[in-house]
Amino acid sequence: MKIITIGREFGSGGRELGKRLAETLCIPCYDHEIIDMVAKKYRLDKDYVSHISEKDIRMFYPSTIGHRFMTNSSMLQQPVKVVAAQYNIIRQLSLQGDCVIVGRCADVLCRDMNPLNIFVYADKLSKLQRCKNRADKNEHLSEKEMFHKMKQIDKERATYRELFTEEKWGRKEYYHLCINTSGKEIKLLIPAIAAYVNAWFMQY
Amino acid sequence: MKIITIGREFGSGGRELGKRLAETLCIPCYDHEIIDMVAKKYRLDKDYVSHISEKDIRMFYPSTIGHRFMTNSSMLQQPVKVVAAQYNIIRQLSLQGDCVIVGRCADVLCRDMNPLNIFVYADKLSKLQRCKNRADKNEHLSEKEMFHKMKQIDKERATYRELFTEEKWGRKEYYHLCINTSGKEIKLLIPAIAAYVNAWFMQY
Repeated sequence: MKIITIGREFGSGGRELGKRLAETLCIPCYDHEIIDMVAKKYRLDKDYVSHISEKDIRMFYPSTIGHRFMTNSSMLQQPVKVVAAQYNIIRQLSLQGDCVIVGRCADVLCRDMNPLNIFVYADKLSKLQRCKNRADKNEHLSEKEMFHKMKQIDKERATYRELFTEEKWGRKEYYHLCINTSGKEIKLLIPAIAAYVNAWFMQY
Repeated sequence: MKIITIGREFGSGGRELGKRLAETLCIPCYDHEIIDMVAKKYRLDKDYVSHISEKDIRMFYPSTIGHRFMTNSSMLQQPVKVVAAQYNIIRQLSLQGDCVIVGRCADVLCRDMNPLNIFVYADKLSKLQRCKNRADKNEHLSEKEMFHKMKQIDKERATYRELFTEEKWGRKEYYHLCINTSGKEIKLLIPAIAAYVNAWFMQY
């Protein structure tokens, strides 16, 4: 079974790389689809699930827990349920057949299936440019605000990973291939990356 | 001009990767050749040059410098001369045409020529296995001693890099592609890496 996981810095093009790689390998790519499945399963709002799915879930608890005030228990259980559902769905998907999974600690969750773990990163200016290119028309962030957003999202991903896996996010030791996309058009790199993936999996 | 530099952890197979990649790309690979050129230029022993070429050159100075005792000045100048000669030779080689250069901070030395910088690494056990496979028949190190040697050499490379470039050794941010060779036969990965190199250089 070929499971390819993609970790990525915000703005590095990791999602695009995952999607294009999956297309070239003719296998499915799971990214936002995981959010949709969890939202459907629990009849929750997609944005809410998306917010929980790679952030520090401690943020979703009132800071007074354990002190004077307590909220109702279903409110407390919701974020944990969402994370657990996401874990189960990733496991199920990976058992179904070859696939690419973007983000969500899939490398750790599927470790027993010997996935090929790729980390995608880039320098600040390249990431800024990618964010600008793909920005929503209604999003009017200054460069400073965009840098802040990039940093914030990466920080949340790091916290999420460290909370659930006790492993540092983005350290090359946890990945099999780290790709710096600075200044490069991802689609032109894809055939070589696909060839690498095939050569890597041939060696079992 | 295609300049490919290879940084590597001891035992990760970086030298082999560089050599095979150069063969596939039909360009020269410079590794020990640099040592030979420096040794020839200064009529020095190859082992002496090799020892200086990627180590903390402060080791080659008596610890009493600046205190009570002084040695003769040519002894003091020798290690610096060797390092300078190595720098000049790497610059000259990179200006001659496409090539692969293994180690010796070539990524930093050739930065103005936009090299593609690869870092090769692996997990401890894979590195140990590679060291065993290529060990000299007369080398009888225990596993513990071999681990110590691996750690020591990487530490020296890190110190050398940090001393001359003020950059941390092995941090993925300084490289364009980081390849984890754990448990893999390098020669089978080479065609894909060569394809990646070509795609990367096409995008200028």
